Amino acid sequence: MAKGNLLYAQSGGVTAVINATAGAIIEAARRQRRRIGTVFAARDGILGALREQLYDLGGEDLRQVRALAHTPGGAFGSCRWKLPRLEADRRPYERLIEVFRAHDIRWFLYNGGGDSADTALKLSQIGAELGYPLTCVAVPKTIDNDLPVTDCSPGFGSAAKYTAVSVSEASLDVASMASTSTRVFVYEAMGRHAGWLAAAAGLAARRPGDAPHLILFPEVPFDQARFLAQVRDTVERVGWCTVVVSEGVRTPDGRFLAEAGSRDAFGHAQLGGAAPTVARLVTAELGYKHHWAVPDYLQRSARHVASATDLAQARAVGEAAVDYALAGRNAVMPAIRRLSDDPYRWDIVPAPLARIANREKMLPRSFIRRDGFGITAAARRYLAPLIVGEAPTPWQDGLPVVATLALRLARRRLPDWRD
Amino acid sequence: MAKGNLLYAQSGGVTAVINATAGAIIEAARRQRRRIGTVFAARDGILGALREQLYDLGGEDLRQVRALAHTPGGAFGSCRWKLPRLEADRRPYERLIEVFRAHDIRWFLYNGGGDSADTALKLSQIGAELGYPLTCVAVPKTIDNDLPVTDCSPGFGSAAKYTAVSVSEASLDVASMASTSTRVFVYEAMGRHAGWLAAAAGLAARRPGDAPHLILFPEVPFDQARFLAQVRDTVERVGWCTVVVSEGVRTPDGRFLAEAGSRDAFGHAQLGGAAPTVARLVTAELGYKHHWAVPDYLQRSARHVASATDLAQARAVGEAAVDYALAGRNAVMPAIRRLSDDPYRWDIVPAPLARIANREKMLPRSFIRRDGFGITAAARRYLAPLIVGEAPTPWQDGLPVVATLALRLARRRLPDWRD
Repeated sequence: MAKGNLLYAQSGGVTAVINATAGAIIEAARRQRRRIGTVFAARDGILGALREQLYDLGGEDLRQVRALAHTPGGAFGSCRWKLPRLEADRRPYERLIEVFRAHDIRWFLYNGGGDSADTALKLSQIGAELGYPLTCVAVPKTIDNDLPVTDCSPGFGSAAKYTAVSVSEASLDVASMASTSTRVFVYEAMGRHAGWLAAAAGLAARRPGDAPHLILFPEVPFDQARFLAQVRDTVERVGWCTVVVSEGVRTPDGRFLAEAGSRDAFGHAQLGGAAPTVARLVTAELGYKHHWAVPDYLQRSARHVASATDLAQARAVGEAAVDYALAGRNAVMPAIRRLSDDPYRWDIVPAPLARIANREKMLPRSFIRRDGFGITAAARRYLAPLIVGEAPTPWQDGLPVVATLALRLARRRLPDWRD
Repeated sequence: MAKGNLLYAQSGGVTAVINATAGAIIEAARRQRRRIGTVFAARDGILGALREQLYDLGGEDLRQVRALAHTPGGAFGSCRWKLPRLEADRRPYERLIEVFRAHDIRWFLYNGGGDSADTALKLSQIGAELGYPLTCVAVPKTIDNDLPVTDCSPGFGSAAKYTAVSVSEASLDVASMASTSTRVFVYEAMGRHAGWLAAAAGLAARRPGDAPHLILFPEVPFDQARFLAQVRDTVERVGWCTVVVSEGVRTPDGRFLAEAGSRDAFGHAQLGGAAPTVARLVTAELGYKHHWAVPDYLQRSARHVASATDLAQARAVGEAAVDYALAGRNAVMPAIRRLSDDPYRWDIVPAPLARIANREKMLPRSFIRRDGFGITAAARRYLAPLIVGEAPTPWQDGLPVVATLALRLARRRLPDWRD
């Protein structure tokens, strides 16, 4: 059986449970000492692999590795940096294979979203082309929940739980003050292209009249007049109104409701500010006092309120990724397969990267209520199990305890990489 | 011994634990059945008392009363409505006494901040003047922590914990992405006049280099050039920078950094948007990519991450308030007295309302680091114990369980109140 080293890297926006996946991978790899020599983690994602900045995890204390299960953020650094198209520039791909060869890396586990699946796929192809024996496995992660094939993406369930819990709690606040203070509360959820997190807010509504009363999805062009009519109707009926707005909501002519104007490294518009825009509109047109919240990174790092279901899935995909890698299953991703809704049962199956790379799973239209302002029973059936279960963290002095890794870089063997 | 009924009312902005105080009061009053007939709660605070909208809590299920301990918001409604000055208009005060007389209310427990202490004080005076035997007790509550005499205000510790936890978690996210993405993260904390919550964020920094790196206090005029120099220095040294900005930060000429222009019913400016203002400044002047978060109501309603210390104090002031009321201690407030820092020991003592009404406890200058951008060891000594301990909530289907009260209004006995 082949022996060699394993490289793990994190990519793109981090989540409350991506380190739980990392911890599961490291632990699973350590149980395979007869085959896996050293487990490396790339510093700052694929950039660390290019630059030959590899953490040698051999010396990391097992307690700290286990503590990754309750440490938000990306313990080894992640990056928003996409490899050029293979046809445009082969050099980075060849460099990566060179780094892998220099450190006898036979298994590459890339933990990210659609872009990372694409990178893993290309690397597996170029490895084969260059005659270097490499098994690439993509490991799913994204709070955006836009990866295809898999039932959901690890990280989403916890962000969804944060969203539903926050909207639920803050709405109790609004309800109690509405007679003389804020009538309309606007909460902004992340989600550039798909309204998955905005939809998850809908889980907060358990009884008639419960918040959120209105959800604005990126999938539904913003109709100002209909929206304002709904707000007015809600305030007159309930006394107050909670609106959840996705950062990706657009006007009918396709502009983001709150275009910040700047773009990230992937060329995506950098958003933020849909909530204040909507809130000011409500006050200007209807006169109601507003408040708005933009939790931003809090929603994807709030490990203290993570979903136990999400945590279990984050660990399961990590463990499966090591199994697939050692079994030589190249260019696959462990996908979560839903076996039943209630009780929620799932298992992990390998999905070919060709079916995953560069494809976005959109929120199905059947999940959006016919009037465009809420979720359907089908959405609830899909979303409800993903936020179930609490995953307590250890605390010290009133703050969550997180892992402290030694993070020792392996000695370099190659010349510098110029990027 | 006097017998009669007790009225409880909530005032001003609610907190994650104000209902815990309410629950403690109701339970304590039920244990005094020989003296207290009916426990009423005013709907929407003092407005409900004026309008004779009184919930009769006699029929509330004990389990739901106990569930108030883990229910954020204000269960009976609160209000931002201040009684006119006694000299300007006696009518509302006389009306309140009339309502109290009609319902044999002998004890009035008013749960709020400085404005409420003032109302309770005036009511106690007018009651005496009109020969109506009334004992008024103010019960402390405010996330602003600006009540004098008491060591801290119930509600603050939980908001402080939310702040420190959120800044800590989100900063791990920023740290992991900084090489290619966000360099500067700006978190906005509530606090119009005093930087108590912004200061609490400082607890997140446990080791050198930890976030938050810079705190902007309302007590320190915003010095743009010095701030930007600090941000640049931090990014160069640490790689990234977390800034906590209080909503009340002002420019040297006294304008709020992000004046929203509108005012609430107490005439206070309604703020929001200091974080985006600061974040945009950083990008414009230094070129760093930014993200910002404004958690707004989330920070005062996040019961799921409440401080156990805060919860214990919220209940203790409620229980003491009933004791003081029955003992006829008029115009007092149960205050928390600190006996030692570490271990944190405290008890409850009565404080005269005359020492509390209309006075704000400011953040001491000795709590702000000499350079104006952080907290001192003295601040840490004061703040640290207030966030200690977790106060788990029951969950169902992934969401926190909250109290569901019957909220039956008592039959009215008086003509309408015209306000």
